[in-house]
Amino acid sequence: VTDELTLRRPDDLHLHLRDGDLLRAVVRHSSGPFARGLVMPNTVPPVLTATDAEAYRKEIRDAVPAGHRFEPLMTIKVVPSTTAETVRQARAAGVVAAKLYPEGVTTNSADGVRDVMALALAFAAMAEVGMVLCVHGESPEAFCLDREARFVDHTLPRLVDEVPDLRIVLEHVSSATAVDWVRSAPTGLDGRHRVAATVTVHHLLLTLDDVVGGMLAPHHFCKPLAKRPEDRDAVLAAALSGDPRFFLGTDSAPHRRRDKESAEGCAGVFTAPVALPVLAEVFEDHGALPRLDAFTGSHGAAFYGLAPNEGTVRLVKEPWVVPADHGGVVPFRAGTTLRWQFVDGGDQGPTG
Amino acid sequence: VTDELTLRRPDDLHLHLRDGDLLRAVVRHSSGPFARGLVMPNTVPPVLTATDAEAYRKEIRDAVPAGHRFEPLMTIKVVPSTTAETVRQARAAGVVAAKLYPEGVTTNSADGVRDVMALALAFAAMAEVGMVLCVHGESPEAFCLDREARFVDHTLPRLVDEVPDLRIVLEHVSSATAVDWVRSAPTGLDGRHRVAATVTVHHLLLTLDDVVGGMLAPHHFCKPLAKRPEDRDAVLAAALSGDPRFFLGTDSAPHRRRDKESAEGCAGVFTAPVALPVLAEVFEDHGALPRLDAFTGSHGAAFYGLAPNEGTVRLVKEPWVVPADHGGVVPFRAGTTLRWQFVDGGDQGPTG
Repeated sequence: VTDELTLRRPDDLHLHLRDGDLLRAVVRHSSGPFARGLVMPNTVPPVLTATDAEAYRKEIRDAVPAGHRFEPLMTIKVVPSTTAETVRQARAAGVVAAKLYPEGVTTNSADGVRDVMALALAFAAMAEVGMVLCVHGESPEAFCLDREARFVDHTLPRLVDEVPDLRIVLEHVSSATAVDWVRSAPTGLDGRHRVAATVTVHHLLLTLDDVVGGMLAPHHFCKPLAKRPEDRDAVLAAALSGDPRFFLGTDSAPHRRRDKESAEGCAGVFTAPVALPVLAEVFEDHGALPRLDAFTGSHGAAFYGLAPNEGTVRLVKEPWVVPADHGGVVPFRAGTTLRWQFVDGGDQGPTG
Repeated sequence: VTDELTLRRPDDLHLHLRDGDLLRAVVRHSSGPFARGLVMPNTVPPVLTATDAEAYRKEIRDAVPAGHRFEPLMTIKVVPSTTAETVRQARAAGVVAAKLYPEGVTTNSADGVRDVMALALAFAAMAEVGMVLCVHGESPEAFCLDREARFVDHTLPRLVDEVPDLRIVLEHVSSATAVDWVRSAPTGLDGRHRVAATVTVHHLLLTLDDVVGGMLAPHHFCKPLAKRPEDRDAVLAAALSGDPRFFLGTDSAPHRRRDKESAEGCAGVFTAPVALPVLAEVFEDHGALPRLDAFTGSHGAAFYGLAPNEGTVRLVKEPWVVPADHGGVVPFRAGTTLRWQFVDGGDQGPTG
């Protein structure tokens, strides 16, 4: 029986840290277990430029508790005014990805993009400088459960075909259609994968039944929506498979309780505090524990062309009850017992 | 241009009035516009017997404001212990219908029925004494969007086939599958329809997009869930068609705001305060205003074998803003402007 688990220090390749008080309240839940996090740019105001990204990186670094070694990987938000020059300057400032939100599709996306291909020159610049395009892949005009499939069928093929070397991450994949598409997407001329997908913790577990099938569960409400059991099973199979195109991006998205339990509830699940323990449960339950390390620690880094992290983190099999909230933010699995526990005492690798 | 509308005093053939303070807060929104309401028995504790129904009828009558003439049509809840004798006694006390909830399917249904056909003798007694069986037609073991179709495919045909003269109302019909089934259900030996369906106000308008497609909207959360656009369109077409098997049952379901905007939100839409104005809009928008009177005032009474109401109610085309709440309960379309307004001044018919 496995009762201890040592993993390469993991990357969270899709993460919302917010700013100000909320950033300071939540960042330790990511900076403790994770070595790096790809930080989403949909703050208010958004992160649009190299200058914005540098300021936001400093704010995050300042908020990380002493003793945590955490590197925020910065992104900019693609908006209609994003140019090739915006991209080049951001890349020069160390920004690793740009995030595309179709207009109106999720939290703070009113300034998103309506006509994706109007940004073709910016995308070409991304391909040229080696910046990844992260996509919230939903077409907002479709019925809620069909939005991801519509985007995959109508928009993603054009991006792949018309911007030859662009590398794309389909974020928080949630449907069988999207999983299949990622698996069948073309590789680049160099033979490397051009398309990958992040997988969240909650999309491995939830279906729409967990959102609206019993009492209404605002803390399970997210975009893209959790879907049918067969969709959840496809996402789960992809994560467990060891296919390097599928890797962890939690999309951990803190909202204050009052903004979730509301007449107009915000979308997002705050998974950072439980991400590794829940993943250990899921992978163990499916006999795939040996594949967890690559899912959290190397597939994503490889796709992004980042060196793998040095050092390790440690989990032990010791039941604990997830707190009801963290500073007014309700975490995933609040109040339930998890059997794996993240503990300090891993090797954070060489300082410096 | 029609700017005034006179309708036969309408019946609401599916209504939650609750009890105690909540009953006193909400009953006037039904007892004003409606002549009769079929009152659901899923109070806490539930209405199970003739005695319970008599006590609940008195509580409702006592809560109706002076000057309103409103007749509560009573129901009992079918539970595993319901017998043929329960049914006969209830009928003798004037109870017109029994309500079947599959176990766990909606608000206060933990004591519902798991094996529907185990109640066959009670159903046979209902057929014998002329009591209608009202069905919450969802199979809780199915995926949330498939529950109604599953019930229609698997359970309803057995009820119809095995209890020959039982008359059934499929409540709050919400899917194209169910609409089609009602249309194709067999008639009785006397040639009368044996199966009908109530249609709510909100299922004429909402799809799942209105619940989870934008911000989470707990005040649009109900069971059965609002479904795909094609399901909503099928329900709408049935209501507008003039087919006497489809008639109004609002399922108006008041919950206090704090119980809706919650980590575990209650299902139900409080439509009573806006039911007639919204229906007038919908029927007018689809060129079916002449059919509204039968939908609200005669199809249901005919199916239940009740005399049509005497007297009229009046609506005028005069925009008004729906209040944000009524005593802590948020009504459907709160804060929006409706173009038809219910006004006093109809003829309530002979007193007595």
